Amino acid sequence: MTAADLALDHVRAAAARIAAHAHVTPVLRSRSLDALAGAELVFKCENLQRAGAFKFRGACNAVWSLDEAAARRGVVTHSSGNHGAALALAARTRGIPAHVVVPQGAVKAKLAAIEAAGATLHACAPTMAAREAMAAEVQAATGATLVHPYTDPRVIAGQGTAALELLHQAGPLDALIAPIGGGGLVGGSAIAAHGLDPAIRVYAAEPEGAADAYESLRRGERWTAFTPDTICDGLRGTLGEPNFALLRRHAVEVLPVGDAEVIAAMRLLWERLKLVVEPSSATVLAALLRHREHFAGRRVGLVLSGGNVDLDALPWR
Amino acid sequence: MTAADLALDHVRAAAARIAAHAHVTPVLRSRSLDALAGAELVFKCENLQRAGAFKFRGACNAVWSLDEAAARRGVVTHSSGNHGAALALAARTRGIPAHVVVPQGAVKAKLAAIEAAGATLHACAPTMAAREAMAAEVQAATGATLVHPYTDPRVIAGQGTAALELLHQAGPLDALIAPIGGGGLVGGSAIAAHGLDPAIRVYAAEPEGAADAYESLRRGERWTAFTPDTICDGLRGTLGEPNFALLRRHAVEVLPVGDAEVIAAMRLLWERLKLVVEPSSATVLAALLRHREHFAGRRVGLVLSGGNVDLDALPWR
Repeated sequence: MTAADLALDHVRAAAARIAAHAHVTPVLRSRSLDALAGAELVFKCENLQRAGAFKFRGACNAVWSLDEAAARRGVVTHSSGNHGAALALAARTRGIPAHVVVPQGAVKAKLAAIEAAGATLHACAPTMAAREAMAAEVQAATGATLVHPYTDPRVIAGQGTAALELLHQAGPLDALIAPIGGGGLVGGSAIAAHGLDPAIRVYAAEPEGAADAYESLRRGERWTAFTPDTICDGLRGTLGEPNFALLRRHAVEVLPVGDAEVIAAMRLLWERLKLVVEPSSATVLAALLRHREHFAGRRVGLVLSGGNVDLDALPWR
Repeated sequence: MTAADLALDHVRAAAARIAAHAHVTPVLRSRSLDALAGAELVFKCENLQRAGAFKFRGACNAVWSLDEAAARRGVVTHSSGNHGAALALAARTRGIPAHVVVPQGAVKAKLAAIEAAGATLHACAPTMAAREAMAAEVQAATGATLVHPYTDPRVIAGQGTAALELLHQAGPLDALIAPIGGGGLVGGSAIAAHGLDPAIRVYAAEPEGAADAYESLRRGERWTAFTPDTICDGLRGTLGEPNFALLRRHAVEVLPVGDAEVIAAMRLLWERLKLVVEPSSATVLAALLRHREHFAGRRVGLVLSGGNVDLDALPWR
């Protein structure tokens, strides 16, 4: 199966596959944020997911999709952090080895989580080429299955379970906003949301310092010639090819946000929702507040993607 | 009705009375905290309650228990913060005036919340005598009903709804730990818990720098001759007379904790549960980790009381 074949049924199958392992995360509301936004906001708290991010959904679906022989050889991935920790933990739920290639400069708390879950770390330079080369090397040496952080269809289907769950918990939505890095979460969310209700508008919140999804859609072709420069460490990856196709098929609109807006939104989420969220998560609220003309009076789902933040280096200090 | 007459039915009635206004807060689990504690921990997230603390439950029950004539004259209280904000918001849900007496030195974020809810602030010296005198003055001038932060039976019954809800959500518990300041939450929790299951052990987590509940039980009489010195700004109040009686009737055991333990536990809750909790909330985890012989292998409910913390002054910085 390829990502192009993915449909709601694959997301539903993923939800069934991960049900014994993943949390059903709560949905929170805030009257004060509703008033600030002039819209009805419904927050899906994936920072409260296992390993602290939605990534566990996709990783868990990938791990539990493997046949016995492949599973025994383990899994490998490259990740700036959350996907690595998620895959390490998912592998542990099945008792199989995990190898995680991590670029230098990844958030300390995320590396610690990967190690705590029992995975083997492989350090590399912080470029996509170095990450992919190192992952291929580990794959060749171990026979482990590569679980790409966002192009793997099993991962995309798994990420879509957050939106599926949100729509079941919160009822009808006019719009859905999720952060975009490689495009696994947004792709899966669009499949789930449009499978249930084709009228839902799907938006991707993207840092201006890593605006490859925005540029790719504007140019009409995938554009990857950038060096990420954003506080959103979870969104520095490059938009994937199948993910780009999903954005186009689902008419996803990308909403750019600046780091200062992200920091302000992050602080609002900590203050008003009492949630520890990482900068990547805050892009969704930042996007809603900057582009509020899209959302006035609407019922909007926002996916808070993760909460793995270094408490010693908060950005407003 | 006095606090001595309170029973499970009063807590149930309070739950029905506040249902249209208060959140049903989520219950969270953490495998890593379970492993650390050697027990099965179930966290009741009252930091996610309206106005950011369990206090909204008691205030809301008090406000909606008033007859029409009394309600029109409004409510008044004295509070270091969370009860004041809660009463202000509860009054707004009924469209009646609220007056809040606040001691100097209260947390800025809490004062802002009280004002944002539309209450009138009255500043006073940070002593219990000054607080009570100022409240009596406002009461005389306006005819407002005094809603004491923890001795009022309507407040105690309302606070008990958190434990009632927790037991419905989480199933049977061996033990329940709640923070103690004046004793409204612990008193209400004991009534609810023992009304459902007399075998549940009820514990109160108390800062060593405001250990009046511990000392009162030890001496066998209410002891109030102390000046609070603790980071737990929500727990500096003095144990109430009816609250002391409830502690004795329900064989509540007080577990003292130091501020350093509270700060470490607070950080653990932020990191592992991804929740913004204030120091007072963290006393429950600190108490469990310090007094772990009581809890090994048990299923323990912990009430995270609130999340109103100054994000510019985190205690581990």
